[in-house]
Amino acid sequence: MMKLSPYLGRASEFLIINSGRSSCLSSRSALLARHGSTTSGRSAAGPQDANDMNTSPKSSAADMNPTSTRHTYIPRRAMMYIPGDDAKKIAKIPTLIVDCPVLECEDGVALNRKEEARQLIHKTLETADWVKERKTRGLDVAVRINSFQSGLADQDLQSLLSAKTLPTTLLIPKIEGKEELRHTAHILTEKLAGRAGRDPLRLILYIESAKALLSMRKLLKTALKVADESHNLLALDGVVFGSDDYCADIGANRSNEAKEVLFARQYFLTVVKSFQRSLQAIDLVHIDFKDLDDLRRQSEEGARFGFTGKQVIHPAQVDVVQQAYSPAPDKLKWAQEVVEAFTRHQKEGKGAFNFRNAMIDRPLLLQAENIVAYAKLIGQPQR
Amino acid sequence: MMKLSPYLGRASEFLIINSGRSSCLSSRSALLARHGSTTSGRSAAGPQDANDMNTSPKSSAADMNPTSTRHTYIPRRAMMYIPGDDAKKIAKIPTLIVDCPVLECEDGVALNRKEEARQLIHKTLETADWVKERKTRGLDVAVRINSFQSGLADQDLQSLLSAKTLPTTLLIPKIEGKEELRHTAHILTEKLAGRAGRDPLRLILYIESAKALLSMRKLLKTALKVADESHNLLALDGVVFGSDDYCADIGANRSNEAKEVLFARQYFLTVVKSFQRSLQAIDLVHIDFKDLDDLRRQSEEGARFGFTGKQVIHPAQVDVVQQAYSPAPDKLKWAQEVVEAFTRHQKEGKGAFNFRNAMIDRPLLLQAENIVAYAKLIGQPQR
Amino acid sequence: MMKLSPYLGRASEFLIINSGRSSCLSSRSALLARHGSTTSGRSAAGPQDANDMNTSPKSSAADMNPTSTRHTYIPRRAMMYIPGDDAKKIAKIPTLIVDCPVLECEDGVALNRKEEARQLIHKTLETADWVKERKTRGLDVAVRINSFQSGLADQDLQSLLSAKTLPTTLLIPKIEGKEELRHTAHILTEKLAGRAGRDPLRLILYIESAKALLSMRKLLKTALKVADESHNLLALDGVVFGSDDYCADIGANRSNEAKEVLFARQYFLTVVKSFQRSLQAIDLVHIDFKDLDDLRRQSEEGARFGFTGKQVIHPAQVDVVQQAYSPAPDKLKWAQEVVEAFTRHQKEGKGAFNFRNAMIDRPLLLQAENIVAYAKLIGQPQR
Repeated sequence: MMKLSPYLGRASEFLIINSGRSSCLSSRSALLARHGSTTSGRSAAGPQDANDMNTSPKSSAADMNPTSTRHTYIPRRAMMYIPGDDAKKIAKIPTLIVDCPVLECEDGVALNRKEEARQLIHKTLETADWVKERKTRGLDVAVRINSFQSGLADQDLQSLLSAKTLPTTLLIPKIEGKEELRHTAHILTEKLAGRAGRDPLRLILYIESAKALLSMRKLLKTALKVADESHNLLALDGVVFGSDDYCADIGANRSNEAKEVLFARQYFLTVVKSFQRSLQAIDLVHIDFKDLDDLRRQSEEGARFGFTGKQVIHPAQVDVVQQAYSPAPDKLKWAQEVVEAFTRHQKEGKGAFNFRNAMIDRPLLLQAENIVAYAKLIGQPQR
Repeated sequence: MMKLSPYLGRASEFLIINSGRSSCLSSRSALLARHGSTTSGRSAAGPQDANDMNTSPKSSAADMNPTSTRHTYIPRRAMMYIPGDDAKKIAKIPTLIVDCPVLECEDGVALNRKEEARQLIHKTLETADWVKERKTRGLDVAVRINSFQSGLADQDLQSLLSAKTLPTTLLIPKIEGKEELRHTAHILTEKLAGRAGRDPLRLILYIESAKALLSMRKLLKTALKVADESHNLLALDGVVFGSDDYCADIGANRSNEAKEVLFARQYFLTVVKSFQRSLQAIDLVHIDFKDLDDLRRQSEEGARFGFTGKQVIHPAQVDVVQQAYSPAPDKLKWAQEVVEAFTRHQKEGKGAFNFRNAMIDRPLLLQAENIVAYAKLIGQPQR
Repeated sequence: MMKLSPYLGRASEFLIINSGRSSCLSSRSALLARHGSTTSGRSAAGPQDANDMNTSPKSSAADMNPTSTRHTYIPRRAMMYIPGDDAKKIAKIPTLIVDCPVLECEDGVALNRKEEARQLIHKTLETADWVKERKTRGLDVAVRINSFQSGLADQDLQSLLSAKTLPTTLLIPKIEGKEELRHTAHILTEKLAGRAGRDPLRLILYIESAKALLSMRKLLKTALKVADESHNLLALDGVVFGSDDYCADIGANRSNEAKEVLFARQYFLTVVKSFQRSLQAIDLVHIDFKDLDDLRRQSEEGARFGFTGKQVIHPAQVDVVQQAYSPAPDKLKWAQEVVEAFTRHQKEGKGAFNFRNAMIDRPLLLQAENIVAYAKLIGQPQR
């Protein structure tokens, strides 16, 4: 029997129209869709739910039509890599209480073991009970293929997409150019053609070089476009900051404090959030897996920055990370009280007001509302 | 009788030609125009005074003609919001020694009080003695309207611009696109048409989302262009970093240290300063208004980064902020000594020289000159 | 007799094909070319060695041809300015163990001493033994001219390029626009026309303003293009972050911690490294030359960020900086052990593996390989 985090029930299927910044009346749901991830990487809208005034002006009509925008939200507070050629580690996945287990074909698998990994992942998808159970419950089953530049991705996809059960999410590393994205979308939509009407295959992209980081806005625009054009075969769910490859690329040495990637992480986050599509932003790996205190500090910082989840490389890291990406009890209590106090003040005709020595205005209120709504989503105990 | 800061006399009307980097001979005045705000948010040139080699190559002839470029500089070390519907708080404005009091229509006013705020602001502009007095002395009287996306801005403007006395400065929140800027300029120039020949209405824009931050260069280019095309009806005076809305937008939680917005603040600043137009850059709000020590730390950091002023939400914050954005006495003393020492060394034919264990070259000298010139401007006691 | 750093033998002439990210088989040499500078500012490829998939798709054939891509690598861990009009300080250069001594015409020379500096630099290049000796050994002899905007650069170049012995490297400050780069290239290629077939004149550019920083990608693209079109008369070797002028430009005050330029430094670095051309990235000056401890901290941080070297303004700073930009013994030992362990694990078919409580995967391995290769390059003792 598979254990699941107490935070996780069935992934919520409810639906939120993201009306962007154009109306302050619907700001609550809009912000939930856009910023629900404030504290934990979970919001209620996928790419199809949101309108981006920049890139898809025509989609706003569709956005107002609930039936065209159904797309469940899958939390990925912790995204854990499991080597795809390691049967023992794969067998332990059902014992993990992790939002997103990743069957790994790329850096975690030696060059001479790639074929072995492909076959084991194929078999796991088709036969493992936990795969079926997670998919039934709307939880994630992810596979990371090799980068297209490695020359290995086409074989990975051929093996993967011939499985009777597909992963929920496909992770594509080392995105560098638009051509790659178009090529990927072309292969995927061809292979998935028979599956129209089902849930889209969710894509998560990796930004892992200086060039990719600086081209990120264009890359994500293209990725959203090819997903939008796939007739619901593909959906872009998020982006991962590939810290170690990035550091190798710029010649940096990783430190625990991660000051060397502060610009990169914050710029990455700003770009992801600028699309107003509820894209997830997954933070860097903490490589020293024995130092859970520093992992906690780094995870809480990432959540405070606005990341929605974090990559992990060891089971011991999962719980620390998932806790950091859930609302803290006192923060939740504060948020509930702010919301209540604001409602009272608004009725009395007051705008900004004083609460525990801090001036609360609309932006702070919206943060508070997000926290309350999110806690409800993941079933966290309320007052 | 209104009290004013000892720092403030009548706003200086003197005039500086910004010759950019093209001549090292005029660097003193050029830098004062561009960087005079180094320590306190005050420099001596507005948009019309400066040439931007990028955006307005044709204006350089005009720039060489002093009579075409007269534009006084208004300091905004502290920019304080006062709810526009709160008659009691508005009545206290004359007791405040603050560079820029803002009559607030936006987040500080509840939705069902907007009309009340409009009427009270209209009446205040027409009748309050302090408004007349500040305007006579060349000090700021500012109003913040609602964003255009809220659907409330047109009514705000209609009410505001029908007053017999206009505010000196109009603050426009949540700028997202170029169309908004063109729309705003269109409305304003129409309403202001009869006022040609007078001082321009000064505009200050707010950057408050990830998308706006990443589009900021284009937005400011457009804003400078529409101001340039307004025949002196409009002038762009500065830009505000709207920290709380920005954090809500990217899903960040504010902390006192503000590490979560370090990239955003520094990128914001770089873009503002890249226009070489002496645009003011106004830093984030410190929300915990009881913690004046941390406010001081944050204000001094902002001034050191290059911001020219800071938003405040409580009278107790004003003095701390305005002090932080004025040159410190020992810094001023250092600057005066550096300038004197350099003059001596230059006469002796020496370039870089050694001063108190530090090598002083031209860039450091320019910083020193800026500080001395600025202190003179605000009437700070000299040695 | 000139003393040289024990780190420096003859500058290595070996040659590495930079195959970019397109093949993981050649990643070792590719990364050495691109990231060899990880720990010390030295890698093995110059502009001609690398292909940039963005800007020069046609050059990939040439890149595969070793004879067309020969370009030695010159380390510039410390880049030290010596006033070009100061005969005494110039006479001391042979006693310095510094990677890159710079004969300085710009900020370190007073306006009324520029002509004196030009003549002394001309004479030094033609007659000084140390110039001859450094050039014979493939070490750097650099000159910094005045900026083109100062109106002084053309005279500087006329004087400089008429010397019988040219400097190895020309430093060009305050780059602001593409036109400047084309103008410079035009003058230089004309003056150097007779020298075809010899080593190219190496160029190093300075980014010293907000506008230049934000235009940096375009500026470097143009610079690489004009160098590529010069028929090997010019080569772009690197870019310097001109911290003091940058701070004056944005109105910032320098602090030892340098938090005010954190975004600028990290963005600068990201842009430099995004070209995948092994361009050197030279970090800010530490102005308090008596505080060697803080210099060490700042230098080590710069090296950890990915910078390849640092500007210095005093002989006492050189050794601290050059040590910081060389691999630390324990880091080198760690790297050697990681490489060995990985080789064993790879043979056994394992990908990522556990090493001293840290998970080592391909990116970390590449960092380790870079360190080992680099130490070999500079002749650092191996285990």
